[in-house]
Amino acid sequence: MAGDTVADWGEDRLVAAIRRLIEQEQGKPAPPTIHLGDDCAVLPMAKTAQQLHKTDCIVQDVHFLPDTEPELIGRKAVNRVLSDFAAMGGAPQSLLMTILVGRDVSVDRILAMYQGALAAAHVGGAYIVGGETSSLPSPNGLAISISGTGRLIGEQAFLRSGAQPGDGVWVTGDLGNSFETGWHLSFQPRLQEAAWLSQLPPDIRPTAMMDLSDGLGQDLPRLAAASGVAYTVDEASLPLREGASVQRALADGEDYELLFTAPAAAEPSLAEQWNDVFPQIPLTRVGAIISNDGETPVSMAGGFEHFANSGRT
Amino acid sequence: MAGDTVADWGEDRLVAAIRRLIEQEQGKPAPPTIHLGDDCAVLPMAKTAQQLHKTDCIVQDVHFLPDTEPELIGRKAVNRVLSDFAAMGGAPQSLLMTILVGRDVSVDRILAMYQGALAAAHVGGAYIVGGETSSLPSPNGLAISISGTGRLIGEQAFLRSGAQPGDGVWVTGDLGNSFETGWHLSFQPRLQEAAWLSQLPPDIRPTAMMDLSDGLGQDLPRLAAASGVAYTVDEASLPLREGASVQRALADGEDYELLFTAPAAAEPSLAEQWNDVFPQIPLTRVGAIISNDGETPVSMAGGFEHFANSGRT
Repeated sequence: MAGDTVADWGEDRLVAAIRRLIEQEQGKPAPPTIHLGDDCAVLPMAKTAQQLHKTDCIVQDVHFLPDTEPELIGRKAVNRVLSDFAAMGGAPQSLLMTILVGRDVSVDRILAMYQGALAAAHVGGAYIVGGETSSLPSPNGLAISISGTGRLIGEQAFLRSGAQPGDGVWVTGDLGNSFETGWHLSFQPRLQEAAWLSQLPPDIRPTAMMDLSDGLGQDLPRLAAASGVAYTVDEASLPLREGASVQRALADGEDYELLFTAPAAAEPSLAEQWNDVFPQIPLTRVGAIISNDGETPVSMAGGFEHFANSGRT
Repeated sequence: MAGDTVADWGEDRLVAAIRRLIEQEQGKPAPPTIHLGDDCAVLPMAKTAQQLHKTDCIVQDVHFLPDTEPELIGRKAVNRVLSDFAAMGGAPQSLLMTILVGRDVSVDRILAMYQGALAAAHVGGAYIVGGETSSLPSPNGLAISISGTGRLIGEQAFLRSGAQPGDGVWVTGDLGNSFETGWHLSFQPRLQEAAWLSQLPPDIRPTAMMDLSDGLGQDLPRLAAASGVAYTVDEASLPLREGASVQRALADGEDYELLFTAPAAAEPSLAEQWNDVFPQIPLTRVGAIISNDGETPVSMAGGFEHFANSGRT
């Protein structure tokens, strides 16, 4: 059994094993799991008036390597989606996990990947309620797509489009060097932190937010463009992960930290309150939002570009 | 511009082009599209007490070929998910579309694929509300994952687990030869037909339902196993697509027809009523549900096995 390939087992046996694993890990019947194994998951209605729905995927040789520990692959696949829920001020509820897998991939590896995914979902307060499997033409190829629904913590979702001139620009945690330090696999999505931010009074509450997946150098320009504003960044203020340069903090990507803007009134009270609640996690004001003056915001150097002709792809 | 690759354009330009296309095709603001471009789609609440959530994917060289017309690829990706909504007695509402794409794939091809996806969503009454892009290590690789949410038409979802001894086994449409005839690309998901079935009175209403994606020879055993029953199939009764043998009708897969069981009382009134409403689409009783007697149901030969050691993979 150890070392069996997907081809050895066949689809039904694999799916049955995954289902057993899910029921074992989540309990049965696990809310909101109903009718696992039917063509669609049937979900109890959320109590809020708006629902979040998100999909994401990670691919071998792009987001992880063939020798990456499979539990960490599953964990990363789920936590990337949870990080997006956090960025909106939301809480994840149900997840669907699709795996695309070459015929020579071992069943052990896939099940271990699900273990990691289930553990991450549990920590994040979400349930895996179904999914799909498909073959890939590359015999050892592997990709995972996660789709999730969730609810808002507060009344309003945090959007990219709410930044105003005069706002400060803030980031949680440290930036850069995510691959070398393993952070891109071991990060914790900032769900609790975002939930706390979403309950702040309006005078210091974030005006715009997103998560840092492609690096501050790419993501801040996107937030500014969505808000129709420009920005300045104080490079000396950037919180650097161990071993990271300013350039790497701007360019590396996969930080999975929160990037947000907040009214000037938030300084310094926001950071003081934050430090009381989350003393282990830095919160840093790294710049300011300025008016656009009709010009395209100046883009900082670097950041992760999925399809660039040079650099990581 | 024509012939540009994904690498030529970069991610932001590609995403902006896709977003323009979506807004152009669906109108703006298109319900339920809110905040396209943020980390999650924000959806207005459905009015029903249960929601459907489904994910699926199609992969080049598995579900389509490098020279498949891109509009048909997008169409197939969406319609496979819509077929699953139909199978549950549901109506799709919002879709997220994730593309995994190698750097040398042309932008024209991707946008044409989105055109096909948007057209299929429109016909099915659904909206594409967001998505994700990722690179693939294979330079010409392509895969599409679609995630959807939807609502139920009737009070109860059709499940695989409701079949009872004495029920008839029914299929819509014709079976087999899906690849050779192009049906696997051009099929119409049976949404209207399933909605009609879901509103039938209990004495003739389907007791279990699924869509035929891996062939009757694999899918009927799955339905029977979920219901704890066995079955008989009258091979002479199978509705054959042009050029298909009985063996192909059992084994080919990708029929995207409805497979359901219904009480004995449904015969012959169900077929008569069906023919009045859907005169162009065959409805055929192909077998019966029998008691299991504690034995594993006998599996028919064939059907599509994603990871089989022989045959199509």
